[in-house]
Amino acid sequence: MKENRTETNRRGLLLCVSGPSGTGKGTVIRRILASNPKMVHSISVTTRPPRQGEQNGVDYHFRSRGEFLSMLDHGDILEHDLYCDHYYGTPKSNIDALLAAGTDVLLDITIPGSLSVMNSYPEAVTIFLMPPSFGELRRRLAGRGTEDPEAMRQRLEKAREEISKAELFTYCIINDDIAAAADKIMAIAQAEHCRYERQKGLEKNILAR
Amino acid sequence: MKENRTETNRRGLLLCVSGPSGTGKGTVIRRILASNPKMVHSISVTTRPPRQGEQNGVDYHFRSRGEFLSMLDHGDILEHDLYCDHYYGTPKSNIDALLAAGTDVLLDITIPGSLSVMNSYPEAVTIFLMPPSFGELRRRLAGRGTEDPEAMRQRLEKAREEISKAELFTYCIINDDIAAAADKIMAIAQAEHCRYERQKGLEKNILAR
Repeated sequence: MKENRTETNRRGLLLCVSGPSGTGKGTVIRRILASNPKMVHSISVTTRPPRQGEQNGVDYHFRSRGEFLSMLDHGDILEHDLYCDHYYGTPKSNIDALLAAGTDVLLDITIPGSLSVMNSYPEAVTIFLMPPSFGELRRRLAGRGTEDPEAMRQRLEKAREEISKAELFTYCIINDDIAAAADKIMAIAQAEHCRYERQKGLEKNILAR
Repeated sequence: MKENRTETNRRGLLLCVSGPSGTGKGTVIRRILASNPKMVHSISVTTRPPRQGEQNGVDYHFRSRGEFLSMLDHGDILEHDLYCDHYYGTPKSNIDALLAAGTDVLLDITIPGSLSVMNSYPEAVTIFLMPPSFGELRRRLAGRGTEDPEAMRQRLEKAREEISKAELFTYCIINDDIAAAADKIMAIAQAEHCRYERQKGLEKNILAR
């Protein structure tokens, strides 16, 4: 695809992907990153212990509670949330620089996290990833087998409450097929770049040339 | 791609594609229709004479001025415009039925036409197709060689006035590559279907299942 001056100078998108635990956010995001080298994932910081197969610095930055609170104190966290007794946060670090350089940044973020980002970045794109049904979500979480029944009950209760907040997001995608959900998020990014409000004044450049 | 109940019942999109003469709307729309059998093009009615290679009922419904005015009188035209001394209009006929059946409908429509559709269909998606530059537009129109200098001068003057109206459209695409422009319009359609406001209440279906 040819790049024109307007597109080359375009600002990156801040894409917030939220959804209840068990919806497959991580898998969908990995799929997008694998096929889209221009998109970057801002890795979250969490105090939750790693699950089987999760790697520090790849899936999350795993930190102790003390380390997390110290990052908070130093203003190094864009937004954070306490979720099922563990902290989750977005490191501020290089997000602004990436956006200014035109890189699209994907955040795997809690629902209150997305709402909080909307305040600091009103131009952020918020996407809610949904399970196909509540029953399917229950099966997926049970299939993980990583949690005791009480933690599982808490997650399901939380999920029900979260799903009812879908209307606060601009986009809503049902994840019944990983490739299709990833495609939709990439289409959203492409479409958002085409919004007039993200290209204000382009008509003046065109008329002048 | 799997279809779920919410998506199967979804309403079609009314996609208005506008842009100055010579921007390549027709070519881009033909490209989309060729690769996307689920999208339908509502063919405009015009009183302008056919150009070389244009077919009645394919590129336009070519009608006499008398026939056009009679359609207007009978309420068979959704919107119309007088452009360089010729009428252009969108036949109302089956648009509502197509949208209700979930079919996306593409309109190749004048700029005032798009603005008028926005009034009757506030949920319509408006896309402005731009030439890469005003100089390039002049070359494309001259290359057509179908018009006398005065008609050409009128079209360019009109184009300048039209390009300055880009801000009235939701999306704006620079057509410097037909395949890329077609891709962007298809991404916009996919993204628009994912907007929460087009799927209101889907969270209730998900929680109930």
